[in-house]
Amino acid sequence: MDNKASWREHPVWLRFLNKPMAERLTSPLEAARSEAEFFSDSESGGCGQKPFFSFVLDESLGESYILKEGSERQIVIRGGKTGILYGTYEAIFDLILKKSLPEGVQTPKYSLRMLDSWDNPEGTVERGYSGRSLWFEGGSFSYDPDRICQLGRMLASVGINVLCINNVNADASARPLIGDLLPEVAKFADILRPFGVRLMLSVDFSSPMFLSEKKSLTGMDVQNYAFCRAADPLTTADPLDEDVRCWWKERAAVIYQAVPDLAGFLVKADSEHRPGPATYGRNHAEGANMLAEALAPFGGILVWRAFVYNCRQDWRDTKTDRPCAAYDLYHPLDGKFAENVILQVKNGPYDFQVREPVSPVLTGMGSTKMAVELQLAQEYTGHQIDLYSMPPVWREIFRDLKNEKITAIAGVSNLGRDANWTGHPFASLNLFAFGKYAWDPYRDPEQVIREWILLNGYREEEGVMELLLQSSSVYEKYTSPLGLCWMVNPGEHYGPSPWGYEFQAWGTYNRADRNCVGIDRTAAGTGFTKQYPPEIAERYEDSAACPDEYLLFFHRLPYTFRMRDGRTLIQRIYDDHFEGYEETLRMQKLLSGIHLPESDRAEAEERMRKQVMNAREWCDVINTFFYRLSGIPDEKGRKIYD
Amino acid sequence: MDNKASWREHPVWLRFLNKPMAERLTSPLEAARSEAEFFSDSESGGCGQKPFFSFVLDESLGESYILKEGSERQIVIRGGKTGILYGTYEAIFDLILKKSLPEGVQTPKYSLRMLDSWDNPEGTVERGYSGRSLWFEGGSFSYDPDRICQLGRMLASVGINVLCINNVNADASARPLIGDLLPEVAKFADILRPFGVRLMLSVDFSSPMFLSEKKSLTGMDVQNYAFCRAADPLTTADPLDEDVRCWWKERAAVIYQAVPDLAGFLVKADSEHRPGPATYGRNHAEGANMLAEALAPFGGILVWRAFVYNCRQDWRDTKTDRPCAAYDLYHPLDGKFAENVILQVKNGPYDFQVREPVSPVLTGMGSTKMAVELQLAQEYTGHQIDLYSMPPVWREIFRDLKNEKITAIAGVSNLGRDANWTGHPFASLNLFAFGKYAWDPYRDPEQVIREWILLNGYREEEGVMELLLQSSSVYEKYTSPLGLCWMVNPGEHYGPSPWGYEFQAWGTYNRADRNCVGIDRTAAGTGFTKQYPPEIAERYEDSAACPDEYLLFFHRLPYTFRMRDGRTLIQRIYDDHFEGYEETLRMQKLLSGIHLPESDRAEAEERMRKQVMNAREWCDVINTFFYRLSGIPDEKGRKIYD
Repeated sequence: MDNKASWREHPVWLRFLNKPMAERLTSPLEAARSEAEFFSDSESGGCGQKPFFSFVLDESLGESYILKEGSERQIVIRGGKTGILYGTYEAIFDLILKKSLPEGVQTPKYSLRMLDSWDNPEGTVERGYSGRSLWFEGGSFSYDPDRICQLGRMLASVGINVLCINNVNADASARPLIGDLLPEVAKFADILRPFGVRLMLSVDFSSPMFLSEKKSLTGMDVQNYAFCRAADPLTTADPLDEDVRCWWKERAAVIYQAVPDLAGFLVKADSEHRPGPATYGRNHAEGANMLAEALAPFGGILVWRAFVYNCRQDWRDTKTDRPCAAYDLYHPLDGKFAENVILQVKNGPYDFQVREPVSPVLTGMGSTKMAVELQLAQEYTGHQIDLYSMPPVWREIFRDLKNEKITAIAGVSNLGRDANWTGHPFASLNLFAFGKYAWDPYRDPEQVIREWILLNGYREEEGVMELLLQSSSVYEKYTSPLGLCWMVNPGEHYGPSPWGYEFQAWGTYNRADRNCVGIDRTAAGTGFTKQYPPEIAERYEDSAACPDEYLLFFHRLPYTFRMRDGRTLIQRIYDDHFEGYEETLRMQKLLSGIHLPESDRAEAEERMRKQVMNAREWCDVINTFFYRLSGIPDEKGRKIYD
Repeated sequence: MDNKASWREHPVWLRFLNKPMAERLTSPLEAARSEAEFFSDSESGGCGQKPFFSFVLDESLGESYILKEGSERQIVIRGGKTGILYGTYEAIFDLILKKSLPEGVQTPKYSLRMLDSWDNPEGTVERGYSGRSLWFEGGSFSYDPDRICQLGRMLASVGINVLCINNVNADASARPLIGDLLPEVAKFADILRPFGVRLMLSVDFSSPMFLSEKKSLTGMDVQNYAFCRAADPLTTADPLDEDVRCWWKERAAVIYQAVPDLAGFLVKADSEHRPGPATYGRNHAEGANMLAEALAPFGGILVWRAFVYNCRQDWRDTKTDRPCAAYDLYHPLDGKFAENVILQVKNGPYDFQVREPVSPVLTGMGSTKMAVELQLAQEYTGHQIDLYSMPPVWREIFRDLKNEKITAIAGVSNLGRDANWTGHPFASLNLFAFGKYAWDPYRDPEQVIREWILLNGYREEEGVMELLLQSSSVYEKYTSPLGLCWMVNPGEHYGPSPWGYEFQAWGTYNRADRNCVGIDRTAAGTGFTKQYPPEIAERYEDSAACPDEYLLFFHRLPYTFRMRDGRTLIQRIYDDHFEGYEETLRMQKLLSGIHLPESDRAEAEERMRKQVMNAREWCDVINTFFYRLSGIPDEKGRKIYD
């Protein structure tokens, strides 16, 4: 168990949140009053005269709110059940930031704003870089209730309204969450409820074959439920099988008895060896709709992940192109999903690579509700060792996502039991910004970063801003410029291995040789561009017009290819890597000159030391890789190892 | 726990060993009588008239024996304490094999013939491909005594006289073996003692810092030992520290009270992050001698592993060459080791790669007792999925090892809890042959393989012989011909990844580029050849004279280099890989036509199916790798993927 003093010193943002909640709250309105009182009492704002808040609950407003400023720092917050809490945080933020209050009704762009935790009941976090799970250990729940309460406040303060508490790779260890552990799930939900945060559970599609009713109901009051079948596990998970459908309906009833406001289920099916409907010759709409039907009576939603591809591809097969996989699978199913199904689609067609175009599933499914899935956990973006701030990247992504059918947003959590919650003290920016973008995806990145800096109370705003604003483009330069993907160490996904994935079964190739690099994904190549609407396709189709940062994602080009700025492709590769490394050195110098709280400084500087080593390794390995292949020296005569 | 019937059906060799020992034996002589009786009673030999054995114990003969045949199948076995048992097995084998008995005194070449088990107390086996540990589980001992008795018989039947029971990577989990678990170690030793098999323990050099006397002596009778210091762990493991020296002396006394005939300690120090004397600025002789001094009063020996190199090498550094590391470290210490120290040296200078020249440590330390270490576990040679019989390889190795100071031999065990003991039913050949080579390292490989086939009772001798005899050269062809090393998947060490290790810190590079491949290790290059005696050095120094199989181990050459047979280097690489794959297909066909016992057949055919896939993968990946780099097509127009 973590030391309270230790984590209390590290609020993700907003130092006033250090003050623990005095009492057990029962509603967002109570939470709002409590936060307003804390804030008024604190010096955090440094605003001189204490503000005075008054609250008008208007259930019809739901998650929305309206802020009005009266005379003498009086603020009236009118809002719906959770809107009133969101409005309170907005008011507090604006006071601290010395911004004027927003005009009119404030409503979130996406109704489902979910943080997906890849936490396993045994306490590990898949792709977690901030320590062990905040709530799991040893196969069950284990947490500090005060810290979970703090978590609820942090999530609510940026408008996140759903927390999926377990890994999408829901294996045997996750099954008790919809069985024996339901009373524990219910207790956990109770802590987060006053902050407007509902739980979601990742479920194993094959659960009916492993979870027997009798065994799983221990400790539950189930006398009100009549069961239509025996207590033994089923021999199938076929979504069209009547027993299976009945099993899930009963299961949902039991689950909702324990957690009446559960948001629903999240399912990773037929993906990377997870079970799914394909086993039974059923399509993904049939699989999803079966679960959605079970959830519908309780208002639950079924979130179905679209991260499906052939993970046993033969590298010799150049016809199969992994980025095409999800669209090929889901586009024919557009319009076939039930009302309460949301298809959750990663932002890019691959897997959270440093640079990917937006997934064509997101732009091509006009009759399907969708969630866009972002990854706050820095799996491919530096493991929360290297600085990588996401808002500038997200701006690019949301530019292409005007689709009305995107009703939800999910972010893979970067939280863990580290005292400072996110490993790198600056990594919490991405969680903060995720909430902000979930509310309004067209925000200016610089403004969001600045708000986080100021709310954190960092005194040297401009230095931290400079570091954060450039961090993602610097990282891209020293790792994977021009849309090159997958040159990471396999499995670990930190550090360079230009051909570590080249001959593997994951569909992850750069196909570099002594003359060329990249894959032709145009209409003349694998045809991937044809999955986009014309206005997007035409941006990428022609190598002469394709934006540099996507060039090698869409095109196979010789090293001597002339870029628009006159440089050759190989020279641009060398330049970017050298520059990325040099910029990292400059970032290190910049960081060392910034005054930060002592604990943040030590952590940030130690991580920056590792980032510099990592940047050097990437720069040298990738340059050597292409030099060994091409034999073309750097025009500027910098050292490339042979 | 394993099912007895199941493993009894799979003796490693010699079907007559299936019959369980009737009683608890107390000496090798009793074991000899018992085995002779079993054999006489069995039909295994199919020799018609029952043989009659008589025994003459002559302690002066030690491990040696003399066999004499009298009239009417009477055999007189004269031997020392364990020699009499070895002579019995020899007589039985010769009868089965219809060979005449050997003339004169039979004496093993190496006095210490050790099987090194990389078993961890928690039950895993590092680089084990035959299931979990035969004797460890859950942090302690857990075994079927009958199976351990069977193991003792198998080891004795080929003259193995020491079993190191735990992983050389002896971490915290191994410390109880010289502490709380000593009574269990003693019980285990009791089972193996009648077969002349003594135990050895891998110990953690830093043990004095972690193991307190008080805690570790639970259950031990230590009243006869006066301790010179307090019960708390020490704060150092410095081998020149008086408290440390005293700690180990006391510890040895306690250990030898429990196991009076313990062979000694095996130590991996200052190697791959294991602790060692370097931490304290002491050299390896000081480290080894300190432990040797503690063991000396009890007749124990200290085996010190020479597998030491910089495992944090920078790939940019072309001056440092890992194969040079051990000689550079140990040669200056030649003559500095105590009488009861044995330096255990892997056969090659790298790490059990498919083809390595003999380690220069073995040929260059005239005043140091040494053990040559072989690896029966198929870490780099196919994981006991791919067929790989070792006798032909060992013949090459021992050709260069006439050094009188090599007094011992160690083999990394390929055993585990699989019913058939070695995963692949044919993999037991390597254990059998290891014992045979430990007794006489100049044996003819074909003869050893034939003996194993016949003792196994395989009816189709020639088919199995053909498979086994060619297996290592076929494997070499489709994986790593010409002395290429390390093109395996990192960590796992199965399957190809030509640059998976290229930019890592392990000193494992091929430095291929668009023109050349290999590392110049001649006098003009890294100077590795200078570590050899002239007669060996001159064999490798000149690329025109260097044997093909070592060519790229010693030389950096252009793809257009002309081999002696007129082919270019690149063509030879292509040819070997294509041929290796084709030969694997022929082996598959050959195997399917051989009549084997049902359980062996199913296992062997399933593994062969995987081997064929593996061979195809190696062939295509390596050919594509070199084709992408060189751009030179196959002269024979075979398919190379691009």
